Amino acid sequence: MNRLNYSVDLAYEVVDPTADFIFNIEVAKTERQTIVNEQFTITQGINVERYTDPVLANRVARVRAPKGPLNIRYEATVDIDHRLDYPADLVEVPIAQLPFEVLPFLAPSRYCQSDRLLEFAMREFGNQQWGYSRIEGIRAWVRNHVRFLSRSTNERTSALDTIVERTGVCRDFAHLMIAICRAISIPARFSSSLDYGADPALGPPDFHAVVEVYLSGGWYLIDPSGASIPTGLLRIGTGRDASDIPFAAIFGNVVSQPPVISIEPVEDAAKGFALPVFTPLAISTW
Amino acid sequence: MNRLNYSVDLAYEVVDPTADFIFNIEVAKTERQTIVNEQFTITQGINVERYTDPVLANRVARVRAPKGPLNIRYEATVDIDHRLDYPADLVEVPIAQLPFEVLPFLAPSRYCQSDRLLEFAMREFGNQQWGYSRIEGIRAWVRNHVRFLSRSTNERTSALDTIVERTGVCRDFAHLMIAICRAISIPARFSSSLDYGADPALGPPDFHAVVEVYLSGGWYLIDPSGASIPTGLLRIGTGRDASDIPFAAIFGNVVSQPPVISIEPVEDAAKGFALPVFTPLAISTW
Amino acid sequence: MNRLNYSVDLAYEVVDPTADFIFNIEVAKTERQTIVNEQFTITQGINVERYTDPVLANRVARVRAPKGPLNIRYEATVDIDHRLDYPADLVEVPIAQLPFEVLPFLAPSRYCQSDRLLEFAMREFGNQQWGYSRIEGIRAWVRNHVRFLSRSTNERTSALDTIVERTGVCRDFAHLMIAICRAISIPARFSSSLDYGADPALGPPDFHAVVEVYLSGGWYLIDPSGASIPTGLLRIGTGRDASDIPFAAIFGNVVSQPPVISIEPVEDAAKGFALPVFTPLAISTW
Amino acid sequence: MNRLNYSVDLAYEVVDPTADFIFNIEVAKTERQTIVNEQFTITQGINVERYTDPVLANRVARVRAPKGPLNIRYEATVDIDHRLDYPADLVEVPIAQLPFEVLPFLAPSRYCQSDRLLEFAMREFGNQQWGYSRIEGIRAWVRNHVRFLSRSTNERTSALDTIVERTGVCRDFAHLMIAICRAISIPARFSSSLDYGADPALGPPDFHAVVEVYLSGGWYLIDPSGASIPTGLLRIGTGRDASDIPFAAIFGNVVSQPPVISIEPVEDAAKGFALPVFTPLAISTW
Repeated sequence: MNRLNYSVDLAYEVVDPTADFIFNIEVAKTERQTIVNEQFTITQGINVERYTDPVLANRVARVRAPKGPLNIRYEATVDIDHRLDYPADLVEVPIAQLPFEVLPFLAPSRYCQSDRLLEFAMREFGNQQWGYSRIEGIRAWVRNHVRFLSRSTNERTSALDTIVERTGVCRDFAHLMIAICRAISIPARFSSSLDYGADPALGPPDFHAVVEVYLSGGWYLIDPSGASIPTGLLRIGTGRDASDIPFAAIFGNVVSQPPVISIEPVEDAAKGFALPVFTPLAISTW
Repeated sequence: MNRLNYSVDLAYEVVDPTADFIFNIEVAKTERQTIVNEQFTITQGINVERYTDPVLANRVARVRAPKGPLNIRYEATVDIDHRLDYPADLVEVPIAQLPFEVLPFLAPSRYCQSDRLLEFAMREFGNQQWGYSRIEGIRAWVRNHVRFLSRSTNERTSALDTIVERTGVCRDFAHLMIAICRAISIPARFSSSLDYGADPALGPPDFHAVVEVYLSGGWYLIDPSGASIPTGLLRIGTGRDASDIPFAAIFGNVVSQPPVISIEPVEDAAKGFALPVFTPLAISTW
Repeated sequence: MNRLNYSVDLAYEVVDPTADFIFNIEVAKTERQTIVNEQFTITQGINVERYTDPVLANRVARVRAPKGPLNIRYEATVDIDHRLDYPADLVEVPIAQLPFEVLPFLAPSRYCQSDRLLEFAMREFGNQQWGYSRIEGIRAWVRNHVRFLSRSTNERTSALDTIVERTGVCRDFAHLMIAICRAISIPARFSSSLDYGADPALGPPDFHAVVEVYLSGGWYLIDPSGASIPTGLLRIGTGRDASDIPFAAIFGNVVSQPPVISIEPVEDAAKGFALPVFTPLAISTW
Repeated sequence: MNRLNYSVDLAYEVVDPTADFIFNIEVAKTERQTIVNEQFTITQGINVERYTDPVLANRVARVRAPKGPLNIRYEATVDIDHRLDYPADLVEVPIAQLPFEVLPFLAPSRYCQSDRLLEFAMREFGNQQWGYSRIEGIRAWVRNHVRFLSRSTNERTSALDTIVERTGVCRDFAHLMIAICRAISIPARFSSSLDYGADPALGPPDFHAVVEVYLSGGWYLIDPSGASIPTGLLRIGTGRDASDIPFAAIFGNVVSQPPVISIEPVEDAAKGFALPVFTPLAISTW
């Protein structure tokens, strides 16, 4: 079990008379992820409207802000009781047995154009043995063929760019891995979190993007960028790719500051809270 | 009220020991669309598993077929009682008032990369008066700047290709219009139907792709290709774009024949069934 | 007649044991462009090998530099006696009468994929009267449909990106205009210069990119970005697009500083040197 | 020494009052390629204007044809005395020693966007030993990672598409190999020929596209598609990529038939003419 303290500060200056925001920064509530306490504060006088996706558990906060500053702080203490499974026990699920709700995660999406990677993916991974080891092979391929390079990409960069240019940041690694999985009919999706354990040389703590693949009836979490310690990943949002779950979708003329983020584990042996560590086991937060 | 007889024949030859198919060819059941009768027949001995999307009403049929021929015939008689509204009564809904379930239709998707069309869309349509007339302006722009050209595009073609190359078929017109709408924060989505009323010079009856935009609390149907008579459009599937609702998603090595389609209106004044005609009113099937 | 003083300072730090550079920063010598004096200085002990393109007059300097700093300064005083023609006197040249040497400037190139803009260009400009006014129409279209936005693009950005995204810098304006011209069979090419007359709000003096189109047996200069005063443009390099004439092509691991540029006109009525001004006439430097 | 008989028949129907054509179908005359006899015939009454590129030896024929049929037949008997070198004797030429005329073949071009493949190419081939073996490694990589698939691509397809989709025809193999070579600073260009030795299952004899790389002061010919027998390749055109040397550039509304091509070797031991065969040696036609 892991306990994490997470906080994020967002600062904007609205230039138009009003601007609309949709935030997805709050920690998802799932069976394995419990919010011990949390607090959302916003510039006085501004209303927040909330919605939780009934399937994916994403929590969004909608805000209409007037001209002037908008500041938001969210902090939470979260307990995560990851399900850890033996990789050898996990199997890929044939199309005929996939839950219908999982099928959309086989389709190409904005940043994961799996339809154009069929030949590549079949050629590289089509003949590998089905199961977690094949997932692991895809993860390793992406990790070994793409260079982590800060600021080398932008919000238009997709899996197609990444397989050509072979540089990127966590979200690019995730998009490419997702596209490859879908191209060989493995359901895969995008999950947003914090980069717990990332090398400080990569910059201050930041939002992080990882992959979930569907195996044996559950979604398993993979970090193809290798930048984080996966057991330190709490779940914020889940979607087909980054287009589904921006931490802030902004409508209107707004000057934005970069988010200021903190993510710290609580170590308390007495209460059973260990530091997140790398594990050879398969990790699920569902 | 319109009554339509629709049939489609699909023929495949499975080359692998087995292949999986997910079909979306059956008529959706909605408040305004009633199935009088329908029949789905398939090569003897092959099971069909069914699922209806609880939100979008898409009906999918999953089939695992063995090596050899696979033939499917679906036929239906459908009554459609379109809601017809005065365009002047319809308003665009501000972000702050959109139902949360509608928000995903503002995000870019595989074939509708609205994020890259912001400057273009704002420049062309940002200053037009909000409302149905702006939708109509977008429809007309797409219709007047893209040439309908059979076989000029393929299943990889996206809105970005279409705004560059300015040729395409119905699905390309739909993707471009959707992308433009989303770029100026109008929710828009993709709907599959049959091309009732299409010029026979374009070929035999075929599946058709149209657009739905969200106005005044409902989804309104637009055909930017101009190829069909909109009141003759029955609803099959609805999604973010073509990647969500292929009429047949095929997993495995399969030789496919083109679908053979028939779509015919029933004219029966006594019962109140008129031929579909063009209308200046806004049309909704929800 | 215009006299201009131009200087550029380049500063690099070679990280590898050696690195190779090919510079194109010196002013071209053409019939209408006379170098009054010039000086090229380079870090002591480093050899420079020179070459002038026999057709395009581009002057390149090749340098192999060892690990450590490399500094180059080039300064020149240049007299330009532009040919100024009445637009109404200029005609587009039919394919059958184009000099064979001009034909390559009809073909698509790295950043000017004219082959994909045929339908667009024919539709917008195909029915306009042939001649300078059509060129002027293309220039105005590009100027009016693209927003000058510093740092919005990078060295991968091509005319296709610009027609989609509608933002860019001078080189993007030039690439798009060139692609459109070629798409309607008007030879067009890319020329590098300095941004004399640019709004200081765009930043310090910089290299500039403009277009040349072939009319009535000569190449005429157009600045679709509108950022410069065209009679203040001296010619450095000419090519199919930016890929042909980078100011510095670098082979090896090198840390680069931005170039420091100065471009100043000499005003001396006695000698006949006026300040560059805008002119409605067509300008040629050949 | 090889003697080849080559013929091509082209048939067009001009729809506009006139149309312009620029053909590049005639065999280049080089030191190693001698035309024994040749004949160019064209629909009576139509003039042909000719030009030979002074550097690349490409021969173009410009034709202005009136409304109606246009038929061209070209036939030639050609002796080719390839230069065959031991691969181990060939070296890559450092940037500092390349002839200046060769430098343009390092730059990216329409279909060979080498600038976007730097990381990939350095990662795969950057550490391989310089020389013909590295060229051979690139050839083998392209051959082994792309599937020859007739009609899978079109005239818009570039090296970027091919590294994503991994299918293509000879021209796509050539473009990808050229882009990779340039990305690691090996000059490479595109050459058009006939597909002597191609598997008849790929279709009737056709134009063929191959690669030339610059080594040890000469241009060496490589067929990354593996479809032809390289010593059976005669040279037609040479350029940066396919955009430079279409066999027919057409300006105007024209209905085209596919070219009908014949390529046959002459076997005559007495005269020293052998059948073209595969060779492990490096082949140059310059």
